[in-house]
Amino acid sequence: MILCDIGNTNATFCDNGKISSMSIKDFKAYKATQNVYFICVNDELKPHLKSQIFFIDLENFFTLDTSYQGLGIDRIASCYSVKNGVVVDAGSAITIDVMQNSKHLGGYILPGISAMLKAYEGISPRLKLPINSQISLDFLPQKTADAISYGIIKPIITLLNETASDKNVYFTGGDGQFLSRFFKNGVYDRMLAFRSMQNLIKQKGIK
Amino acid sequence: MILCDIGNTNATFCDNGKISSMSIKDFKAYKATQNVYFICVNDELKPHLKSQIFFIDLENFFTLDTSYQGLGIDRIASCYSVKNGVVVDAGSAITIDVMQNSKHLGGYILPGISAMLKAYEGISPRLKLPINSQISLDFLPQKTADAISYGIIKPIITLLNETASDKNVYFTGGDGQFLSRFFKNGVYDRMLAFRSMQNLIKQKGIK
Repeated sequence: MILCDIGNTNATFCDNGKISSMSIKDFKAYKATQNVYFICVNDELKPHLKSQIFFIDLENFFTLDTSYQGLGIDRIASCYSVKNGVVVDAGSAITIDVMQNSKHLGGYILPGISAMLKAYEGISPRLKLPINSQISLDFLPQKTADAISYGIIKPIITLLNETASDKNVYFTGGDGQFLSRFFKNGVYDRMLAFRSMQNLIKQKGIK
Repeated sequence: MILCDIGNTNATFCDNGKISSMSIKDFKAYKATQNVYFICVNDELKPHLKSQIFFIDLENFFTLDTSYQGLGIDRIASCYSVKNGVVVDAGSAITIDVMQNSKHLGGYILPGISAMLKAYEGISPRLKLPINSQISLDFLPQKTADAISYGIIKPIITLLNETASDKNVYFTGGDGQFLSRFFKNGVYDRMLAFRSMQNLIKQKGIK
């Protein structure tokens, strides 16, 4: 069974547990030869997907107990299989959602790491610097390169600690593994949305 | 006496306590008819400023006890008059610097509020939304517009609380007043850098 999670930057496939990724540009030229069960947050691609046979949109099958208006299908899918915990999907954007007894309590959105680097670059050429993945969050930075890496990572981790309190934190998405390293008791789960899609297909008997 | 703080987006003047601002584009056409004592972080403008009589660069007169390599002159000027406290200059970028017994302990840089809004917009058209200045930071957001406003303001305030501990926090810069509202015991001081410039000119007898 082929599953596909279509975002703003990449489309990520899960083909019997094997995960691969392609750019949206390449994805537009991709031709499916068997059923592809997908979720898609990229509005621009929706007409294209509707015109393709073999592409089956799972969006309307998902249900989630929430008061949040307009929760993206990517966030719904990531939360769907989490009974209790904080779900962090770190891609183009970083979404943080809180689940309690299978109810979605709300959530917030941060720019993803590469969007943050671009934001610094847009402010001044002096701030066009790569991220230092070894940055220590325990000491105040002593140079601009560290001041930026600290400025990207430390606010995320500090706020996540406050949001999570004693809940488990599940990281997914392209930068999920990287961010989970800064978080004590953080769990990285590349399959979070795909597992929800698998469960949904089984539960609802989607064909 | 005319003072001028030249940033990446605007040049801000202080003319005998009266503060005014102009865009960098307008500033390039501005002709001084009396001495203008300035600091400038905008590298592109430096040759232009050097060619102007009446423009007096204060940068080399400032001294600050710090281990930080390459601290911008805007941050040096804002910290110069603060003996103990956290200095938050919220402009195109938001710089956070910690002073203790007139020693600079280090600091970090966040993108400014308008750079953050642009970063969201660049990720997806769905995230092109204005900031909700009335956002509550005490409840998890229940819609995307609030998820973004919360995502901009809450990480700044949460990390600032951790950085400041029991120190005073001095806000300055274009968004300083707005941010200070979310911070208990936050002090907004539009004149922070200008007061340092005034003190420096007096102390060193600059003419």
